[in-house]
Amino acid sequence: MTSNDDARSEAGATFTPADVLVAIRRGAPLVHNITNAVVMNTTANGLLAVGASPIMAHAPEEVAEIVAIASSLVINIGTLTRPQVEAMDIAAAAARTHRKPWVLDPVGVGATALRRSTAERLVRAGPAVIRGNASEIETLAGEPPGGRGVDATSTAVRAGHDAARRLARQAGCVVAVTGVVDLVTDGRRDTLVHNGHPILSRITGTGCLATALVGAALGTGAPPLEAAVAALLVLGIAGERAAAGEAGPGTAQVRLFDILAALTPAGVAEAQRLS
Amino acid sequence: MTSNDDARSEAGATFTPADVLVAIRRGAPLVHNITNAVVMNTTANGLLAVGASPIMAHAPEEVAEIVAIASSLVINIGTLTRPQVEAMDIAAAAARTHRKPWVLDPVGVGATALRRSTAERLVRAGPAVIRGNASEIETLAGEPPGGRGVDATSTAVRAGHDAARRLARQAGCVVAVTGVVDLVTDGRRDTLVHNGHPILSRITGTGCLATALVGAALGTGAPPLEAAVAALLVLGIAGERAAAGEAGPGTAQVRLFDILAALTPAGVAEAQRLS
Amino acid sequence: MTSNDDARSEAGATFTPADVLVAIRRGAPLVHNITNAVVMNTTANGLLAVGASPIMAHAPEEVAEIVAIASSLVINIGTLTRPQVEAMDIAAAAARTHRKPWVLDPVGVGATALRRSTAERLVRAGPAVIRGNASEIETLAGEPPGGRGVDATSTAVRAGHDAARRLARQAGCVVAVTGVVDLVTDGRRDTLVHNGHPILSRITGTGCLATALVGAALGTGAPPLEAAVAALLVLGIAGERAAAGEAGPGTAQVRLFDILAALTPAGVAEAQRLS
Repeated sequence: MTSNDDARSEAGATFTPADVLVAIRRGAPLVHNITNAVVMNTTANGLLAVGASPIMAHAPEEVAEIVAIASSLVINIGTLTRPQVEAMDIAAAAARTHRKPWVLDPVGVGATALRRSTAERLVRAGPAVIRGNASEIETLAGEPPGGRGVDATSTAVRAGHDAARRLARQAGCVVAVTGVVDLVTDGRRDTLVHNGHPILSRITGTGCLATALVGAALGTGAPPLEAAVAALLVLGIAGERAAAGEAGPGTAQVRLFDILAALTPAGVAEAQRLS
Repeated sequence: MTSNDDARSEAGATFTPADVLVAIRRGAPLVHNITNAVVMNTTANGLLAVGASPIMAHAPEEVAEIVAIASSLVINIGTLTRPQVEAMDIAAAAARTHRKPWVLDPVGVGATALRRSTAERLVRAGPAVIRGNASEIETLAGEPPGGRGVDATSTAVRAGHDAARRLARQAGCVVAVTGVVDLVTDGRRDTLVHNGHPILSRITGTGCLATALVGAALGTGAPPLEAAVAALLVLGIAGERAAAGEAGPGTAQVRLFDILAALTPAGVAEAQRLS
Repeated sequence: MTSNDDARSEAGATFTPADVLVAIRRGAPLVHNITNAVVMNTTANGLLAVGASPIMAHAPEEVAEIVAIASSLVINIGTLTRPQVEAMDIAAAAARTHRKPWVLDPVGVGATALRRSTAERLVRAGPAVIRGNASEIETLAGEPPGGRGVDATSTAVRAGHDAARRLARQAGCVVAVTGVVDLVTDGRRDTLVHNGHPILSRITGTGCLATALVGAALGTGAPPLEAAVAALLVLGIAGERAAAGEAGPGTAQVRLFDILAALTPAGVAEAQRLS
């Protein structure tokens, strides 16, 4: 039994991560991003590298039209503005109308009332997946926020796993909590992604890129749990390779795009460490 | 007869591309960019690398003052907001008042009504050059939009060439349509730029950078057709060199800035493939 | 007497630059940035590389809450919008209330009335440090603006030193003017930072990164003059190393992050050239 078979059976997937990567490359899903100003460029480059087709748009006047033509939607609250919040609500409603899957990234949700109220409203609007770090997921699950800022450095990511399962059941969606080990759960089934590297926490926007890759995977029609596992796995493997030779964070960021573009489905199947 | 002489005669130029590069380096034209949030950083770096002086400003309250001191203006509709649309209209009017040349990039114009109405109004405001991919130019020329998203992957760029000539005559300006082969036309005279490399389509914002480089070339006082040819040629040559050794998109992006900074007028004259 | 001792005595510091770097690495201060759209990504990466924890937030509705949890604040006027100006005023007031140190970067202040009025109001709101290039500091000190655009290329940076001392006395804060040689002054005591490299002027946002690093240093509790000297020194040394081997601006930018992450306090103490 290969590790690929393991993943298939243990995750209960009809789509292996390698299958999802193949589907992204074949379909080049159009991924609509309403995201923060810090990561727009690197998110677009990461999506292009993996084989998806990114479009960034956040005007309330146009997001419903973009959702209608897109394969999937990514909503990231990292640098909110009042019009962007309005655009997020419109886009989430349009996604429901057009039955387009979407993923929510509640960046720094514990930090302010605006982020909390926006994220809580978006959770109720029906994302297919929520992707955050432990403190963000804990906050959304109704626990006191334990983190600070947006770059969680805690090694105690497992502390967020219970919160993820509870949030998944509350919200009726898949929740992915990323850290030293990533957990993807629908509240009943869990998959742990062991691939990854600490260098990713030294590069801004890798969490946001993880979320955008979930969006690309959702855009292939993969089920939410399998989409999230595939996305986190692909980024984790790319992070491991980008860190080779003790690269600094600048070099590792550049390599990350090279590696995402060069990663093969067979390479994913061989490198994956899921449980 | 050198290839430089060829270009001079075939393009009917008083400015060869090498001359335009020299003029950018000597004059360091101040290029005012009202552009999308995805590419602000890479556009600024590309302009600095080639020898221009970038300034980004998009508040309606200040753009007229910036236009007045700038050498040229770049308007790119890639991530519109309501205030940014207002700023674009003000800046285009100020460019007319102060007789500053400007270039329009109608990113994703086929995707939404907001983009179409904004771009159509800007076309009427008198740009010196419009630079887009085939589907964007087709949309502006009044044909049904055939593309999706903002990164045109079609290899049938020549299908947009007729639309470019028609748009150039309708709008009374130069139109540049980029793809596998780039066409620059004023509706009567055509120049084809054969330099370039597919890696550019794997890096976000290279189309926007092409437009910004047109802005830099316009800022030297070069005529619109010659400015556009020079800009697309410089980027095409840089793209070819950035792709050497089968670099991935991350590495190629970094090299692009290095190469733009190191490119010599003689190197441009030698590498250029125009017809 | 080592060069480290020199710096300590000549700057009258209780914190040497090496001490400040140690404090940033130990405390990972949360640095709140209200900054321009061009540099958000590179500022975040630069802060992460040096060991600080960046958070970008500019909604008027949330900035006061972010200031309350942050260690320090960075306000940069490079690409103003009306809501961002409002957020800056709110954040500066919150910083006073919560006694959080902050640094102002008056990018391109001479270019427009909006920038001048915003910067002048912020100067009155009590920054700990103002960091700009010579023409920006001259404008704030009440002299006719001599520069153009935001990337000052003048080699006559010393011409701004008198303006810096005058502005420091007028505003009652530390002023840092960067160029070929950087000056940090409180109007009575001066420190010159001789480290640096011209390549930094070919990479967009290095001035903004200098300001953000001042924010990181302020977040450790270091006094403003010592914080500013440490930040400019660290960036100057990193710039020298990033330029090694005649790297182009693309490569130098990548290396800058690698080097900021790898720089040791002992390396800073050895390389520093202060007077």
